[in-house]
Amino acid sequence: MISGKPIGRLSLYRRLLNGLMHEGVQSVYSHDLAARAGVTAAQVRRDIMNIGYSGNPNRGYDVRMLVESISNFLDDPDGQNVALVGVGNLGRAILAFFSGRRPKLSIVAAFDSDPEKFGRVIRGCRCYSIDQAPEVIRELNIKIATLCVPANVAQEIADLCIRAGVKGILNFAPVPLHVSGSVYVEDIDMTMSIEKVAYFARTN
Amino acid sequence: MISGKPIGRLSLYRRLLNGLMHEGVQSVYSHDLAARAGVTAAQVRRDIMNIGYSGNPNRGYDVRMLVESISNFLDDPDGQNVALVGVGNLGRAILAFFSGRRPKLSIVAAFDSDPEKFGRVIRGCRCYSIDQAPEVIRELNIKIATLCVPANVAQEIADLCIRAGVKGILNFAPVPLHVSGSVYVEDIDMTMSIEKVAYFARTN
Repeated sequence: MISGKPIGRLSLYRRLLNGLMHEGVQSVYSHDLAARAGVTAAQVRRDIMNIGYSGNPNRGYDVRMLVESISNFLDDPDGQNVALVGVGNLGRAILAFFSGRRPKLSIVAAFDSDPEKFGRVIRGCRCYSIDQAPEVIRELNIKIATLCVPANVAQEIADLCIRAGVKGILNFAPVPLHVSGSVYVEDIDMTMSIEKVAYFARTN
Repeated sequence: MISGKPIGRLSLYRRLLNGLMHEGVQSVYSHDLAARAGVTAAQVRRDIMNIGYSGNPNRGYDVRMLVESISNFLDDPDGQNVALVGVGNLGRAILAFFSGRRPKLSIVAAFDSDPEKFGRVIRGCRCYSIDQAPEVIRELNIKIATLCVPANVAQEIADLCIRAGVKGILNFAPVPLHVSGSVYVEDIDMTMSIEKVAYFARTN
């Protein structure tokens, strides 16, 4: 069982490698990729070995082939559908941010409790009533939900999504979610982050 | 030297305690706070002891006093000014999200390279040209910057902010920043996060 951190690093390596590929770079050494990613070269080599990439690190990695290997490992070849719940300021920004960014991940439905938004297409994504979520999540085979809802309803919304088949949650609500072990939750707590930065900006 | 994780937990405890206070709860046991925060009771007690709070955990913590203690530890009593760079979709969402949320942290200036935005007040925050950043950051004694800029300019913008006196950066740009040890960087990498969720939603 691979944990969250190496998956995060592979995602970062792929992004950096895509950048190199667009600059016309064809091969890269582990120490160069490591410096860009802010990790050690040994870490890069281990992560890449773990996904079964068979390139020779002494001659450098072939950038295009390494991107392909990482993509084969990380992505579902058929793509994955994502739901977003809570189409406020943050939800809209997330829709705009992810729109078309990852070929294998599509936000295919947004949910809100505000009737003004029902049926509208916001940032390219159709918005439904939260009451329709169980039905739409099942119909569109959505296994991933992004929660941009207030803290006081986050757990209830998470439970609703999970009952409808969601297996992974990206949680922007500033509250920890309690879920069973078969569901993966990644928290993005912006308030906590800015408070950490503020503390260290003051005391460092 | 206290590291990032306990500071993050203290930020979370305070948020949970504020929630309890609004519900009229006056005291809380470490195990109850721990369950809400998703950590162990021993961890809660250790974190709270480390900030010098002298309540008796056997009778429960006084909610209001504990909030005060955490605030005394985390916050600058005079408040801290924050800059936001990059007023696109994400930048606007961040402005709206943080606006008035933390009494001791104020986003007092936003910067962008689009002349259409110069001089405008966006989500309650005045927008300046990025060329004015060094001057404005110094004048307003800004030590904290939130970067919502594209990856290819993030390092350059970070360097500019740091030269002007910034000591802490909340980095939403999807690229690691290289800074000296006296500057604290907290990354929020939304692409990495959604890719992690997608991976585990598929394989768990």
